[in-house]
Amino acid sequence: MTLLKNIVLNRTKCDILIDGGRFKKIARELSVPADATGTEIVDLKGECAILPGFYNTHTHAAMTLCRGYADDMELFKWLNEHIWPFEAKLKAPEDFKTGLRLAALEMIRSGTVFFNDMYFCNEQMPKVLETMGLRATLSFTFLDFQSEERRRAMIDRIKKLPFGGNAAPSGRIKFAVAPHSIYTVCEKNLLFLTDLARERGLKIHIHLAETRKEVEDCRAAHNTTPVRYLEKLGILGNDVVAAHVVHVDDEEIAILRERGVTVSHNPVSNMKLSSGVFRSQAFLKAGVPVTLGTDGASSNNNLDMRESMKIAALLAKNTYSPETLAAEEIFEWATRNGARAFGLDAGEIAEGKLADAVIVDLNNERLVPHHHLVSNWVYAADSRCVRHVICDGKFLMRDGHVAGEEKIIADVRAAWGTAVK
Amino acid sequence: MTLLKNIVLNRTKCDILIDGGRFKKIARELSVPADATGTEIVDLKGECAILPGFYNTHTHAAMTLCRGYADDMELFKWLNEHIWPFEAKLKAPEDFKTGLRLAALEMIRSGTVFFNDMYFCNEQMPKVLETMGLRATLSFTFLDFQSEERRRAMIDRIKKLPFGGNAAPSGRIKFAVAPHSIYTVCEKNLLFLTDLARERGLKIHIHLAETRKEVEDCRAAHNTTPVRYLEKLGILGNDVVAAHVVHVDDEEIAILRERGVTVSHNPVSNMKLSSGVFRSQAFLKAGVPVTLGTDGASSNNNLDMRESMKIAALLAKNTYSPETLAAEEIFEWATRNGARAFGLDAGEIAEGKLADAVIVDLNNERLVPHHHLVSNWVYAADSRCVRHVICDGKFLMRDGHVAGEEKIIADVRAAWGTAVK
Repeated sequence: MTLLKNIVLNRTKCDILIDGGRFKKIARELSVPADATGTEIVDLKGECAILPGFYNTHTHAAMTLCRGYADDMELFKWLNEHIWPFEAKLKAPEDFKTGLRLAALEMIRSGTVFFNDMYFCNEQMPKVLETMGLRATLSFTFLDFQSEERRRAMIDRIKKLPFGGNAAPSGRIKFAVAPHSIYTVCEKNLLFLTDLARERGLKIHIHLAETRKEVEDCRAAHNTTPVRYLEKLGILGNDVVAAHVVHVDDEEIAILRERGVTVSHNPVSNMKLSSGVFRSQAFLKAGVPVTLGTDGASSNNNLDMRESMKIAALLAKNTYSPETLAAEEIFEWATRNGARAFGLDAGEIAEGKLADAVIVDLNNERLVPHHHLVSNWVYAADSRCVRHVICDGKFLMRDGHVAGEEKIIADVRAAWGTAVK
Repeated sequence: MTLLKNIVLNRTKCDILIDGGRFKKIARELSVPADATGTEIVDLKGECAILPGFYNTHTHAAMTLCRGYADDMELFKWLNEHIWPFEAKLKAPEDFKTGLRLAALEMIRSGTVFFNDMYFCNEQMPKVLETMGLRATLSFTFLDFQSEERRRAMIDRIKKLPFGGNAAPSGRIKFAVAPHSIYTVCEKNLLFLTDLARERGLKIHIHLAETRKEVEDCRAAHNTTPVRYLEKLGILGNDVVAAHVVHVDDEEIAILRERGVTVSHNPVSNMKLSSGVFRSQAFLKAGVPVTLGTDGASSNNNLDMRESMKIAALLAKNTYSPETLAAEEIFEWATRNGARAFGLDAGEIAEGKLADAVIVDLNNERLVPHHHLVSNWVYAADSRCVRHVICDGKFLMRDGHVAGEEKIIADVRAAWGTAVK
């Protein structure tokens, strides 16, 4: 058990007891139960506030290794001439593990407690993450243009995934299936993968309606738009997580809402690659519980959900009006909506909820004055404001330090050079 | 003298000798001159890189006190119903000094070494800043709707400003004149203030062409657009710093370039208030050396130039194409262009230049791998990457600590409450 003393929640100083991975009791004054030997007491002295952690619903974690490798160019040139050739140089599984650990470190430091990944997963990845303590859904990613051998291996692996996707003893890590997109996976394989995922109760993670080109190509090939195409194939459901969802009309938004599809908005990537503008106003109007993602470090180039919240809000205001996507709304997208989409009873600091949280330093210059903590967090803060991060009731970062961080950086530098002469 | 040993500059480890506020010598191996008693040696051990500091060309520093006070609403409602009433509650000069110190602290922490301010300046402000060590231009701001008494007092003060604007013994702080905008200052007073500023050799700092409403009102009142209106009045020149400059056509951009006006782009504020989109592509094409500003903490809500670089680049890509405003370009806007606009022989790490710099930690997870430092700095970093900040040859921040920071936060919290029950 952990007892957080004198922590600020909703402008009020209180004590919070964490037990069994959940917020057990929140009250003005709590003492440690008499039978609780070994309870750790952490006194925040009224100088720190607690907020829900972030649930990042779309990323390619190990792509942190491509950070800064290629920027400022058009999507297909960027992929074909730079990113895919770079990835071909990565050594599996060592480099993917190193990239994943680097990503996890960066996410923890900036307050993220869960991420939904789409990359080169294998059975060793959950072990790597399990030690770092955050939650994740790791997808087995399928593309038709992988070699015949790799496609077969991928299908074999997907067939062997556990029912329910549970990938590690903690229960924090799940497996999922990721048909990369409608333009990289044919109809037959889309259906095959969907069936496989549904048999086993796994999430289906896909890029959807990201670019105008995707829509045009879909019209040419299937005589309809991407969302309608998946709807016609019977693929859309509340187990589908669709990333980007930029080029959709009102009727498609209604279909997505009707089917309970999780929509992951990735503002930084969309802007950086000039993919188009997410229709935040229309999604808000339709009452879709949108979630937030950072996308990979190669198109962002960080995994900072706080920064993505601010940029999502600014993009909405720039496109529609200053009232669109207020601080409290984007905060909900980045926290509670993400947790709920993945069936996590979390994303709020309340009794009975899973104990995932960010503890911020109220003496950081960006969090003063204290007119409005959520506004300060969304618009003014950065990761330097984060003092502790808790996931599943355990400290992942304590006083700014993540266990093993020095080794992670050393491993990345050893593998990918310092580039310093 | 200070000798920086084993610091990374352009991917190369070197030593840098700082003397008399300038980078005196940069070479592979430097030893301390024999006659140099008291030279401080700082060994960076190849783990830190040096970059130019930021030159923030438009802000309202003391508005940090309004951070989070009112968000997510339309400009004129925001000003009339929230910001101006809040400002009326501020106690001069105590609150303005507190806000200014808070702003300076935040700017130093995020790597800013100079800012061009527009707010309620008085003769005591330079003393406050002088102790913090960064450079600034502080404007005496004039609005017609100030009380008759305040207008007279302002004119008296402006008349007494020193020739050349030198405001403090260090030479780092200058005074300037700020007619707030063409819609808050009448033609007669615009001309009067311009003449006064030119007599004394002071910069003229003005909001220009920020909103569509400003342009429409200008057309109605003067039958022309804001830039042409100032051109007709003979006000445009290389002593003018124009903030925002959103609603301009190609001919107006040519006029601004011709007159050598400093253009300050404020992407976050423009997006948050839905003011319109800065024409970065047109300014680049016209070869205008644009500079970057954060605007005030009430419309941003931080003073973080690193974040503003990223958002400026994303906004340009979102509006035009992924190639527009590459990392190296926006980095130049935020550093060298800003320094040059204010006559500072700075903004580059080179022998003979003023010793202003940011020293970043190459072991920070956001700066690895080291494919491209400027890309990492623009797109991936945050203020946690900044280890030391140097201005005018002196350390303003050392190992993450700014002298007096605890007192600044305590003063803000004492004046503006913790809002914690």
